[in-house]
Amino acid sequence: MGKLYVVGFGPGGKEHMTQKAIDVITQADVVTGYTTYVNILKEYFPDKKYIATPMMQEVKRCEMAVEEAIKDQTVAMVSSGDSGIYGMAGIIYQVADEKQADIEIETVPGVTAASAAASVLGAPLMHDFAVISLSDLMTPLELIMKRVDCAGVGDLIVCLYNPKSKKRTGYVEQAADILMKYRSDKMPVGIVRNAGRSDESSCITTLGELKNAEIDMFSVVIIGNSQTYTKNGRMITPRGYAVKR
Amino acid sequence: MGKLYVVGFGPGGKEHMTQKAIDVITQADVVTGYTTYVNILKEYFPDKKYIATPMMQEVKRCEMAVEEAIKDQTVAMVSSGDSGIYGMAGIIYQVADEKQADIEIETVPGVTAASAAASVLGAPLMHDFAVISLSDLMTPLELIMKRVDCAGVGDLIVCLYNPKSKKRTGYVEQAADILMKYRSDKMPVGIVRNAGRSDESSCITTLGELKNAEIDMFSVVIIGNSQTYTKNGRMITPRGYAVKR
Repeated sequence: MGKLYVVGFGPGGKEHMTQKAIDVITQADVVTGYTTYVNILKEYFPDKKYIATPMMQEVKRCEMAVEEAIKDQTVAMVSSGDSGIYGMAGIIYQVADEKQADIEIETVPGVTAASAAASVLGAPLMHDFAVISLSDLMTPLELIMKRVDCAGVGDLIVCLYNPKSKKRTGYVEQAADILMKYRSDKMPVGIVRNAGRSDESSCITTLGELKNAEIDMFSVVIIGNSQTYTKNGRMITPRGYAVKR
Repeated sequence: MGKLYVVGFGPGGKEHMTQKAIDVITQADVVTGYTTYVNILKEYFPDKKYIATPMMQEVKRCEMAVEEAIKDQTVAMVSSGDSGIYGMAGIIYQVADEKQADIEIETVPGVTAASAAASVLGAPLMHDFAVISLSDLMTPLELIMKRVDCAGVGDLIVCLYNPKSKKRTGYVEQAADILMKYRSDKMPVGIVRNAGRSDESSCITTLGELKNAEIDMFSVVIIGNSQTYTKNGRMITPRGYAVKR
């Protein structure tokens, strides 16, 4: 029986891959994924057989992966971060169910972008948080912004995935305006671009200044809650320990 | 100058550690952490110098780690999951700031419990979600439940950390009652105990039946949103791809 692994390889640098992700890719007959991700892995595993498809072809990519597994191949379907968070795991199961494919599927978890970005900024995720994607390709914008509003009401730290793309601008600003109904415009906001990769960069700004920040599709934005502060260039959300002391 | 790494070693199994976590622990002069975590790592790295402290001594543990680094030691302060999510990263920075310690601090991200649990259940975290800890040791219960309510309003998937302890019971049931104001009692709920460890176990139940489920302090609970379904024993939150097709 063919086996299909859905592998999250973490933020990008090989050092952030789990041992299991490395082993699965090393042993796979075929590695499939979005072209950008495949190109990252080709550097680390140059001798593998790769099948890459461009962006927006998620269903086709998953169908190809499932078909390879049906042919008794061991397949590693790769994506960055954690394959279980906005990744390919869901659609792989959906496609396999549709095809009634007699294959084994296993998800290999990885370090998600929120963790990678937080590690660069200091310790912003020490308390309850919401992870919200600003991509409205599959989700109505109204629902996305409702979720941002709910995070504001609940004083949750907010971690924004897919904050911008070339075609999609203005949503980060809209989210910031919503959160400023509940939080000070001085609230620290961390922006990390290419977290966990060799060309990583980051900055810490404020909710009020977020509209002037440089943000693109490779960025993750972490907006603090009412307790978050910055010190020595680090963004920290305390959890009460020091106070208790 | 001493160096202090705050290392998340993932859910527990060595295969889920990142290469960087393995390298940092291998090269550290001293490994410090909560006794339970240190005992896990002793199996994988038997020849290290360990300093373990019991639960509830978080500040003391961090002070010891910072003091070792001040003595020019390379220290790995370890915790399970991701050290940046409810981990020790925040308090390490706080203690180092208080002591004005002239040391370098680096956080090494790991696979957080939400990712590990989701990989066991199927693909429940394909959409926006909230991570909420039910521990009221450092957070008023009222605020915790307000956050659960906000997640209900926003139709966020909810991932509960620290759902129960020996002394703290009834909070999961309270959270379920709040979410049932917004979601069907048939909504799938996944419970994973010891995710990513050799003695891992899991079950899928419903929001209405959650009060009858076996849950303890080693469990993570993932509550679906209005789109989540179960099929072939997997819990899936779709993202619209199949529909779009």
